[in-house]
Amino acid sequence: MPSLKSYMPILSWGRTYSRADFSRDLVAALIVTIMLIPQSLAYALLAGLPPEAGIYASITPILLYAIFGTSRSLAVGPVAVISLLTASAVGQVAEQGTAGYAVAALTLAFLSGGILLAFGLLRLGFLANFLSHPVIAGFITASGILIAVSQLKHVFGVDAAGHNLPELLGALFAQLSGINWITLLLGAVAIAFLAWARIGLRSAMDRLPIPQLLADLLSKAGPVVVVVATTLAVWLFSLDRDGVQIVGTVPQGLPPFTMPAFAPDLLKELLVPAILISVIGFVESVSVAQTLAAKRGERIDPDQELIGLGAANLGAAFTGGYPVTGGFSRSVVNFDAGASTQAAGAFTAVGLALAAVALTPLVYFLPKATLAATIIVAVLSLMDFSILKHTWRYSRADFTAVAVTILLTLLLGVEVGVASGVTLSVALHLYKTSRPHVAEVGLVSGTQHFRNINRHEVETRRHVVTLRVDESLYFVNARFLQDLIEERIGADSEVQDLVLMLSAVNEIDFSALESLEAVNERLIEIGVRLHLSEVKGPVMDRLRRSHFLTDLSGEVFLAQYDGWIALAGKADSPIR
Amino acid sequence: MPSLKSYMPILSWGRTYSRADFSRDLVAALIVTIMLIPQSLAYALLAGLPPEAGIYASITPILLYAIFGTSRSLAVGPVAVISLLTASAVGQVAEQGTAGYAVAALTLAFLSGGILLAFGLLRLGFLANFLSHPVIAGFITASGILIAVSQLKHVFGVDAAGHNLPELLGALFAQLSGINWITLLLGAVAIAFLAWARIGLRSAMDRLPIPQLLADLLSKAGPVVVVVATTLAVWLFSLDRDGVQIVGTVPQGLPPFTMPAFAPDLLKELLVPAILISVIGFVESVSVAQTLAAKRGERIDPDQELIGLGAANLGAAFTGGYPVTGGFSRSVVNFDAGASTQAAGAFTAVGLALAAVALTPLVYFLPKATLAATIIVAVLSLMDFSILKHTWRYSRADFTAVAVTILLTLLLGVEVGVASGVTLSVALHLYKTSRPHVAEVGLVSGTQHFRNINRHEVETRRHVVTLRVDESLYFVNARFLQDLIEERIGADSEVQDLVLMLSAVNEIDFSALESLEAVNERLIEIGVRLHLSEVKGPVMDRLRRSHFLTDLSGEVFLAQYDGWIALAGKADSPIR
Repeated sequence: MPSLKSYMPILSWGRTYSRADFSRDLVAALIVTIMLIPQSLAYALLAGLPPEAGIYASITPILLYAIFGTSRSLAVGPVAVISLLTASAVGQVAEQGTAGYAVAALTLAFLSGGILLAFGLLRLGFLANFLSHPVIAGFITASGILIAVSQLKHVFGVDAAGHNLPELLGALFAQLSGINWITLLLGAVAIAFLAWARIGLRSAMDRLPIPQLLADLLSKAGPVVVVVATTLAVWLFSLDRDGVQIVGTVPQGLPPFTMPAFAPDLLKELLVPAILISVIGFVESVSVAQTLAAKRGERIDPDQELIGLGAANLGAAFTGGYPVTGGFSRSVVNFDAGASTQAAGAFTAVGLALAAVALTPLVYFLPKATLAATIIVAVLSLMDFSILKHTWRYSRADFTAVAVTILLTLLLGVEVGVASGVTLSVALHLYKTSRPHVAEVGLVSGTQHFRNINRHEVETRRHVVTLRVDESLYFVNARFLQDLIEERIGADSEVQDLVLMLSAVNEIDFSALESLEAVNERLIEIGVRLHLSEVKGPVMDRLRRSHFLTDLSGEVFLAQYDGWIALAGKADSPIR
Repeated sequence: MPSLKSYMPILSWGRTYSRADFSRDLVAALIVTIMLIPQSLAYALLAGLPPEAGIYASITPILLYAIFGTSRSLAVGPVAVISLLTASAVGQVAEQGTAGYAVAALTLAFLSGGILLAFGLLRLGFLANFLSHPVIAGFITASGILIAVSQLKHVFGVDAAGHNLPELLGALFAQLSGINWITLLLGAVAIAFLAWARIGLRSAMDRLPIPQLLADLLSKAGPVVVVVATTLAVWLFSLDRDGVQIVGTVPQGLPPFTMPAFAPDLLKELLVPAILISVIGFVESVSVAQTLAAKRGERIDPDQELIGLGAANLGAAFTGGYPVTGGFSRSVVNFDAGASTQAAGAFTAVGLALAAVALTPLVYFLPKATLAATIIVAVLSLMDFSILKHTWRYSRADFTAVAVTILLTLLLGVEVGVASGVTLSVALHLYKTSRPHVAEVGLVSGTQHFRNINRHEVETRRHVVTLRVDESLYFVNARFLQDLIEERIGADSEVQDLVLMLSAVNEIDFSALESLEAVNERLIEIGVRLHLSEVKGPVMDRLRRSHFLTDLSGEVFLAQYDGWIALAGKADSPIR
């Protein structure tokens, strides 16, 4: 029975919390809060929700993660890819801007939280391993493109929606004549400034004679500067009357208590998207957390992370938010700013709560184009096309998985894209194992080592064939081995002994056992004895539970060399 | 470019066709025809189609298979499991007894034929290997139970439908009060006689002083005897007026030319069932064909089999049939009766065509209970519960796959059942490989052979750890290895060299490469060198295309023993 402490890491780190931790966490929280205010508003926009939903989704979830999460650096909240997935899922059951839309988003967070929590309690964290890294990288890159393109409508000041690249581009082109030039100017300037702030600002700051902390703060304040500057511009010149879309009234106050919907039909419709959001969110979050933990020699517990993220999402569902997870950029900022415990997250939540209470009237004139610019610049850093180059050089199968994931995500949308990527990577793996590499081997002279007769200078014997099977034997390749042996041995009337060298066979399942039995019978018919060598312990244990070893016409040799010696007693001689 | 001959095996075997072949084929065809007349009517009933559909489905398809198929013994036509799948699929888009129902069945055959043909031309026959034998065995057994129970309504003379065991049993119990006792008597006698005919008739025949051929014919004539006897009984005593359901009017004549429907909605709805029917049909057929071919040292070509079965199904679609495949029992009968080429099938088709032209008026009074009895006795031989016992002893994973397939097929129907079985067997395989067996190995004294330190008496060294990884490294287990090495080496400050013995690693995919790079970096940090040994040729070829070998802190040893010698130069000594 696991203790309460294992389910609530705060009981461990909370007991040793020091003053030094406190001041480090406070500084990190300050920096992250400044970064999160515009980002939360922006991601809510991306998810199709009112801006305050982004702020709310950053308060309770962070607090709950601080109690249940195991990463000391992870910053939980709305992130780009999950916001896009939310828009895609909720858009299928409700009209954007309606009350039903917001409730569906709460319901999605509720389902997602429940799924994560259940997986955590069942200790199913290992399931995340079924997503291969190239597939995730491809998916994130393609999602980044979709997100950036979906935000262009706000920069152009037009109305264009879609769930995939052709739809989005088509809608944009159809609206080109309606471009609002003032909005475009604001947006373009914002993008240019934000891009510079990301690339050049920090080094400019370092050259100024100011304290380190201030330089840190200022270098992260790029988005805030743009927000303030463009809001002022709209207010001073009444640009909203010229058609510049603004955020408008955002309710002032702490997150409200909200209820997700429990209508069975809605739950059923949102279940598959919720599973997808849970899996993608978990994988993204846990890989960030693991990377950051490894840098400080810390460990995280994937199963407990599921519980932490589950609690965070349930929190979002009941306090006006939408699905959340651990974000890459904010977690890195949190880590770099020196966050030493989960308390940094709690302080960030307090900062955002203050903002929700005090600052929301100030964003009335904030142009949506600015928020879109924030998103566009943020997702540019998610895109990584080098994975295509690296996988192309290393393995065509991995490259195919990445390329298909990227293409299908762009062409058919996020859900089809990631589902195809996962299916394809599993299918490619099975395909590879369905035609295993089987090498005919011989003895490397002067050693007891056996290698492929086609790659190495080795000794062989005319009457003995040794085949090294380079794959576990299971239903997918059981038949293949049977055919291959028939082809090699059936045609060679000189062979008297066939040795299957099983050093690379880690499993023989029931289908493969039946194939081996058939091979043994067939070889007996044509007068060839079947031997095994280098059978691994676990495989041997299992074979002993069947009739196979009793029926086997030959012997089982511990080492391949033992077999070589034993079968040398016959009247045959080396031929090379 | 494959020649026409490779696509039309008849051009090969037809050229050497002899008089001896002819007489052997003729005898086999006679026996199979007698067997098929009642069976075809019965399977049509099972599929929910008028009885003539079963006869039609046995004529053109057999002729086409004789031209395009590669098995000399396979008998193609309607079979039990495919008839059940057809009833399940077509029942979802049309009402039984309507014209739409028959057209949907034609369309299903058309789609299935197209899929099989396409797979054959693309040479995708290997895909059948993705169905593990235990899953197929479990599926066939559970389908047999469903089929038998679904036919009880005809034996009871009531109306009860359903797609799974609870539905079927529920419907039967609800109708128990309406049992037609005369029908039940007819059905029970028919079942008892047929069961005896299967088990005891042949040996009774062998004791009679009659020629071998006649004994063969008579022993296969059990169903015909029952058909004739019960038909006569109904006719003589006008039992149809007492509520005994009869076959009624069956059109007299050759198969008509029919058109499947090409409405996109219907095609879309039937696509998934058609894929399922194609796969199941192909797997069943090819395994029968392979078994029979092996008995005579012949070979079949799975890709060409796809083409043969595809042509047969297209033929069924245009001549009033429904999906067909190679049947187990009729093929065995064909084989045992001495069929020596595909011509036996063609002669069977002629026999059935004669029956369609001449004999159909004779079955007017044939009771449906007799046909149901034929089906029930036929499927009893499909059931094989021993697979549960065998897999339980050998491997819990295989047992789980069988048990789940049987349970879900019974409880939720054939489509969910087989889909779950396939998914589960793939998932179980992936799960097994996700936590690979990793053994710490040492040298078996006096040899160059290394084995598990926990299973064998071996030499080890304090400063060198050798881990033999017993699984290909790919995304599913990439993280696992990383954690395992961290756990073994991170905790042991004496270790200076870690050797990964890769004799059982047949693939390192891109995700695993990234993990190995991370392991190498981490070990450099804590002052441990990473070496590889016994890397297989194909794996090494691939590693050379990455930076890994350049970055590797240690060496790559051809044989594990080379590494043992090289690393012995250090100031350490054996500890056991």
